[in-house]
Amino acid sequence: MLPAYRSWRQLTRLGQCRFALSKCWHPPRASTRLLHQTPPMRADVQLTREHYPVTRGSYSELTDDDLQQFRRILDDGRVVTAADELDIYNTDWWRTCRGESRVLLKPRTTEEVSRILRHCNDRRLAVCPQGGNTAVVGNGVPVFDEVIVSTQLMNRVLHFDEFSGALTCEAGLVLEALDTYVSERGYIAPVDLGAKGSCQIGGNVSTNAGGLRLFRYGNLHGTVLGLEAVLADGEVVDLMSAMKKDNTGYDLKQLFIGSEGTLGFVTKVVVQCPAKSNAVSLAFLGLKSFEDVLQVYRGAKSMLGEILSSCEFIDQESIACARDNLQLAPPLDDYPCNMLIETSGSDDDHDKEKLTRFLEHMMEKELVLDGTLASNSREMTAMWTLRESIPDALLRDGYAWLYDVSLPHHMFYESVEDMRRHLSGFSADQVTRVCGFGHLGDGNIHLNVTAPRFDASVEGAIEPHLFEWTAAQGGSISAEHGIGFKKRDLLHLSKTPAAIRLMKTLKAVMDPNGILNPYKVLPSK
Amino acid sequence: MLPAYRSWRQLTRLGQCRFALSKCWHPPRASTRLLHQTPPMRADVQLTREHYPVTRGSYSELTDDDLQQFRRILDDGRVVTAADELDIYNTDWWRTCRGESRVLLKPRTTEEVSRILRHCNDRRLAVCPQGGNTAVVGNGVPVFDEVIVSTQLMNRVLHFDEFSGALTCEAGLVLEALDTYVSERGYIAPVDLGAKGSCQIGGNVSTNAGGLRLFRYGNLHGTVLGLEAVLADGEVVDLMSAMKKDNTGYDLKQLFIGSEGTLGFVTKVVVQCPAKSNAVSLAFLGLKSFEDVLQVYRGAKSMLGEILSSCEFIDQESIACARDNLQLAPPLDDYPCNMLIETSGSDDDHDKEKLTRFLEHMMEKELVLDGTLASNSREMTAMWTLRESIPDALLRDGYAWLYDVSLPHHMFYESVEDMRRHLSGFSADQVTRVCGFGHLGDGNIHLNVTAPRFDASVEGAIEPHLFEWTAAQGGSISAEHGIGFKKRDLLHLSKTPAAIRLMKTLKAVMDPNGILNPYKVLPSK
Repeated sequence: MLPAYRSWRQLTRLGQCRFALSKCWHPPRASTRLLHQTPPMRADVQLTREHYPVTRGSYSELTDDDLQQFRRILDDGRVVTAADELDIYNTDWWRTCRGESRVLLKPRTTEEVSRILRHCNDRRLAVCPQGGNTAVVGNGVPVFDEVIVSTQLMNRVLHFDEFSGALTCEAGLVLEALDTYVSERGYIAPVDLGAKGSCQIGGNVSTNAGGLRLFRYGNLHGTVLGLEAVLADGEVVDLMSAMKKDNTGYDLKQLFIGSEGTLGFVTKVVVQCPAKSNAVSLAFLGLKSFEDVLQVYRGAKSMLGEILSSCEFIDQESIACARDNLQLAPPLDDYPCNMLIETSGSDDDHDKEKLTRFLEHMMEKELVLDGTLASNSREMTAMWTLRESIPDALLRDGYAWLYDVSLPHHMFYESVEDMRRHLSGFSADQVTRVCGFGHLGDGNIHLNVTAPRFDASVEGAIEPHLFEWTAAQGGSISAEHGIGFKKRDLLHLSKTPAAIRLMKTLKAVMDPNGILNPYKVLPSK
Repeated sequence: MLPAYRSWRQLTRLGQCRFALSKCWHPPRASTRLLHQTPPMRADVQLTREHYPVTRGSYSELTDDDLQQFRRILDDGRVVTAADELDIYNTDWWRTCRGESRVLLKPRTTEEVSRILRHCNDRRLAVCPQGGNTAVVGNGVPVFDEVIVSTQLMNRVLHFDEFSGALTCEAGLVLEALDTYVSERGYIAPVDLGAKGSCQIGGNVSTNAGGLRLFRYGNLHGTVLGLEAVLADGEVVDLMSAMKKDNTGYDLKQLFIGSEGTLGFVTKVVVQCPAKSNAVSLAFLGLKSFEDVLQVYRGAKSMLGEILSSCEFIDQESIACARDNLQLAPPLDDYPCNMLIETSGSDDDHDKEKLTRFLEHMMEKELVLDGTLASNSREMTAMWTLRESIPDALLRDGYAWLYDVSLPHHMFYESVEDMRRHLSGFSADQVTRVCGFGHLGDGNIHLNVTAPRFDASVEGAIEPHLFEWTAAQGGSISAEHGIGFKKRDLLHLSKTPAAIRLMKTLKAVMDPNGILNPYKVLPSK
């Protein structure tokens, strides 16, 4: 059954109170997301080495002696070599990359990871660290025959400090399990992603995952208090401070946050969890232009202040795609722009009062043309599901190019409009739609182009144009998804030659044999 | 004139409303702090090389040719060699360290910094980067004859993004000037320190400065969006992204945050400024025990939630010291423990309602015995001045050992009680008092011992006992002040051998000649 949204325009016509605000409830975001259903089927995924121009590094090939050594380190059941079992570990969830690893290892302890890496380093075997395998730029799957080392069995909560909210756990703890654990103790995870049911905190940390809570609570460089990582040669670096403040020497943990497993293998983390809010409200707004969106965003920052917890943007075309391809009912009639405004606070009455004042002000100024407030948890879930299902809906157009860039706010939506102009020469049979949605509060737009099928000429028109355009605005070519395998040769658009040289210097000194997640992050040349 | 505080106990006796809450106002924290007055006079500061066991590295000595080269890079007035002028740059504000540099350079541009460092690196001249010279562990002054390179003339605001709150500026911008600039535009600096009138944002970033706002807004690893640094060999690394999200390659800027100028010279920064709150309230509470303090802290987190912006602790002895040595009137009669609870929000009425509910609940449960709310900006300033004057008051006992450690909350005040027991054998002529105050919300206590005069036997009893005890609790031996010169041989208490090896590796590869801020951060052996 579809949620029965109450649009304020409808309510106004009926003479009813426009902002029928609901009782407070806890954030009921769906734990089962469309994202975790089977992705749209496509042809068998092409091997990465066939699809992309990439040359295997001069690593050793796996031998039976290596397998025997792995079986000495782990028990037999945790050394997987069966091709059918390996398939899902070789292929990324988005079915865009596929490697040919012959072995998957499932360590349970840091010591086991250390022994595995020491052996691989001595033998010059390349290694692909893997968490929940939900990344989108090919960071988490092998490119060739790298040994896959999965954190899936390292999933214990080790400690929780109820005073500070510091959670200590192993890297393989699934984000949703982490969130549930701390939620029962009055806290929330500092990150929330569509992939929370599958992704693991170690992978989140290794990729500096963004998501819906970053706007309020900042990124993992600020909220990770400590971690433990195993270096390429097997040395364990214990940086497991649970202190919010610890200025003792270089903050080495930062090297492992966002370096996508290329500098070390994260085995444990300590994350600072924010206190859970008693009250959460969610409004879905319709607006006539992006200029108005920016005004409403500034108004929300000013009038909602400390309770503003999400500020998302969705354009008309993205909504239409979700409606047409997934039969998800939009809460409002068609508006050129839509916003999702979430508040989280400790007093529901106060929050509702602030939200009402804000919304009335915005409607009086005719910046918000219509809107609806989720009046129960089902509606709230439906609104978030709509937002989070858009990538899936886009894929169902046939083929989709999905991008993740940061831009200054005033250029946020200009990226989509520029792309529409740029692709205007293509026929409807080549380009279905150009649309955008994303984390407005963070300046992070997901810009997308869909088509009935893959078309190299369309791709050639999009890339590198989009990235060059983004760089010219002072934006970032990868806001939250990282560089991984797919964007490594675009890195120069967001980083200077001096910065890339320094990255290479760090890689060379920390992983001299280059065994950790090769072909990722750093440019191929 | 002393502020006329209204204690709730007095008001209750008078039959008046206990929580006489004031009108809203903007944070009026004092811009002129006691900290910026002349420090208590002591004998001439001993040379660092005479006071501490330290050996000069094999660096070159400054020659007339070097001075000529510096004068070619800078104009003559920005190459300072007069001994009397150099004196304050050679000596730290706390008068505990003194170097013998023969030259101070005042570059205005990154290019000038680059040329200076290139020359120093080629000539193997050691360099001491200097900001506002307010650090407490000897990070910002030369140990021997290092060339002092000051950022004081690099103090321009370069850009401000009114949508995102991202401020781009040069490293020498004084924190208070930065705060004033963004405050006029509806934002606040993400850091606030007692030294704000002198310290510079480049120094704040280089030392990962903590302070009063960290509790709410997190540390600089999270709030610095970008920076520019000059490496030891003069190479400029431009990491000046102003994007809140930028996952493109290794997050190199993190290397320069908190590494105290030993890995690079920070020349520009981009900081994410939080929106300014319309309403700020401040309560001063009296409690009978630290157990009750912890209960009130948990209650504040839960009942004040998103508006809680500071949670500070001050013990009875610290209050007595400020009263006796600086004639600062405490807001309440003597209580064993005191708390400062600050709220910052967007709606004064809502905040006052939350605060009243919280305080009533805490007094009903007899966790808070008495308290007073600042009823005007003068009282608020007075309360913060009391809190921030304690270090100065302690120095006036004669000699003071001031420490800065992080601890799990349940061990926070046990540190002081342990130290009292540990020093109980000393006479009143040797130890005047042992006391503690600090950032309870961050688990960061400033533990202090004072005496009529320096006594090596007392110091020997305090150190390394305190640091070893702190490490045993899983704490940090330096919460917010860094390692600098004074704590470098204590680093092993908070960091493992593997971590220290990795730090040394980074230092060796980024600054092979070791010219950048030598004798700091890394252990002497």
